[in-house]
Amino acid sequence: MKKFVNEPSAAVDDYVAGLVGAHRVILDWDAENRVLQRRELPLRPKVGLVGGGGSGCEPTHTGFVGYGMLDAAAPGQIFTSPGPNQIVAATRRADSGKGVLHIIKNFTGEVMNFGMAQEILYFEDIEVAQVVVNDDVSIPDDGETAGRRGLGATVLVEKIAGAAAEEGSELADVLAVANKVVSRAGTFAVGLSSCTPPARGKPVYELAETDMDLGIGISGEPGRERVPIANAHEIARLMVNEVLSDLAPEEGGDLLMLVNGMGATPHHELYLLAGELAAAAEVRGARVTRQLVGNFVTSLDQAGAAVTFLELDEELTRLWDAPVQTAVLRWGR
Amino acid sequence: MKKFVNEPSAAVDDYVAGLVGAHRVILDWDAENRVLQRRELPLRPKVGLVGGGGSGCEPTHTGFVGYGMLDAAAPGQIFTSPGPNQIVAATRRADSGKGVLHIIKNFTGEVMNFGMAQEILYFEDIEVAQVVVNDDVSIPDDGETAGRRGLGATVLVEKIAGAAAEEGSELADVLAVANKVVSRAGTFAVGLSSCTPPARGKPVYELAETDMDLGIGISGEPGRERVPIANAHEIARLMVNEVLSDLAPEEGGDLLMLVNGMGATPHHELYLLAGELAAAAEVRGARVTRQLVGNFVTSLDQAGAAVTFLELDEELTRLWDAPVQTAVLRWGR
Repeated sequence: MKKFVNEPSAAVDDYVAGLVGAHRVILDWDAENRVLQRRELPLRPKVGLVGGGGSGCEPTHTGFVGYGMLDAAAPGQIFTSPGPNQIVAATRRADSGKGVLHIIKNFTGEVMNFGMAQEILYFEDIEVAQVVVNDDVSIPDDGETAGRRGLGATVLVEKIAGAAAEEGSELADVLAVANKVVSRAGTFAVGLSSCTPPARGKPVYELAETDMDLGIGISGEPGRERVPIANAHEIARLMVNEVLSDLAPEEGGDLLMLVNGMGATPHHELYLLAGELAAAAEVRGARVTRQLVGNFVTSLDQAGAAVTFLELDEELTRLWDAPVQTAVLRWGR
Repeated sequence: MKKFVNEPSAAVDDYVAGLVGAHRVILDWDAENRVLQRRELPLRPKVGLVGGGGSGCEPTHTGFVGYGMLDAAAPGQIFTSPGPNQIVAATRRADSGKGVLHIIKNFTGEVMNFGMAQEILYFEDIEVAQVVVNDDVSIPDDGETAGRRGLGATVLVEKIAGAAAEEGSELADVLAVANKVVSRAGTFAVGLSSCTPPARGKPVYELAETDMDLGIGISGEPGRERVPIANAHEIARLMVNEVLSDLAPEEGGDLLMLVNGMGATPHHELYLLAGELAAAAEVRGARVTRQLVGNFVTSLDQAGAAVTFLELDEELTRLWDAPVQTAVLRWGR
């Protein structure tokens, strides 16, 4: 297995140790409860933000703990949701008296375990609200499926709701802005390879050298359709059409574009694709006024990329631009 | 070929278009001269910094143009040094009256073309100095080779010399601090795969599933030695021993550690390895007080990682911590 890893069963712990060691000013690991948390508690009470999910999608959520984003993260094992007790502990840590927002990606296990945590927390004096992120436009939202998966919009929700919480907004308002992001965002992902979970030691599936997968998730699932690989220009056009046809943003409005690598796609390719995606969006009359390009919501060492568009308004733009200070996202402070 | 790319011959232009489009506030592309430059000229004259080299190593140097680092970068074609005229144009752009520092990685073509550019510039009213980065400890520095290659220390030189230039230092002083970084830094790189240049369409060489390469460069060259792959703990020990045996830092001194992915190694693995590297350095009595972890000096889509150690002192620590505002590195402002 071509990986920097020790015992596969220790991959999450070893990763967290490295992350916390590199960012001691920001992060602290509660090993007993398996909660990654901000080292410093807020000076004044604020709404707390908790994210959690299977590991392997790093830097989601671990790399987004810090000023202006998450207060605590509950990382599960690879592609496995964190347990309810872990989420409860993260929530207690994040609470400073103004309630806590759970940011949940729409995957069955994650929704279930956050739900169980909320049942436990119901008997404590912590107000909890939840936002379920479901931006994956590749899945029909027709009641026949578990619904759309939560993908890149998760980062946008965490950043924007995090900024609202830092500003001093109440839980209901932080929840409202988080839901606004979800309702105005869509994502489509393309896979160029499978990924290799450490405990498995080999790729989850084979993808021919000439093929690509359309509509992949972030837990090693194959896409909804396999087609011959095309050039970046064509791939970008396809991705943009999928998202903007679904999202149908107001004409002439501003868009934020997140170009997200799946883990193994390098800077050079991601920015090349970003140029094509922005151009394809422009052809459809959209105006991309904010961009974020990099590997943010990943699937281990998978090659591939996703695009997320968020329809901005004045409030969302201001909160996006607000300062942030995490291991991965940092600006304006 | 599993890449986001259009015409392979246009890979650099398409990439630059995407990068500049995403970071218009910071960057500007002079297409005629093929120079990537800071959008805003400095308000007061300052020493200019120019980096250049073959593309494929992104974000080196393109992602480091901006406040506190480079004033201009000259990207060549993939794994091909920029031409002398390109370097001349970058130097003219970077000059604001206090001279320009050329930051050169020790590769034959790069040294030669920067040298030819300097001959042309000799007849202009621009004072030029140069630093040659040669931190690769895997190559014997015995006069039998072209010398040690310039690897991860390039980023450290650009950051630290860039901060000195922003502070208002004179060219001689910026050069002195750049040379100080080179003399106090060492790097060792490990490859887990080959890379695929777009124009070639297939990997440069084959590396067996059970092997890894020790002492790789950043232009697709294989390493000096091929050995069975080990776990992250063992690999880290080997890397740390290679660098610290060569560097022989003063006992008890502070070290900056750069953990650099080769392009396709994900966040999870890089931080896991960073934890092992920091622990291995500690075993040898070193104290890692600053860390930077990510894909910074890459070789297209190669899997692998390098560690660079820099022996800090008060001046280097202060300049490292100083504000920076580029596409890739951003803090403190």
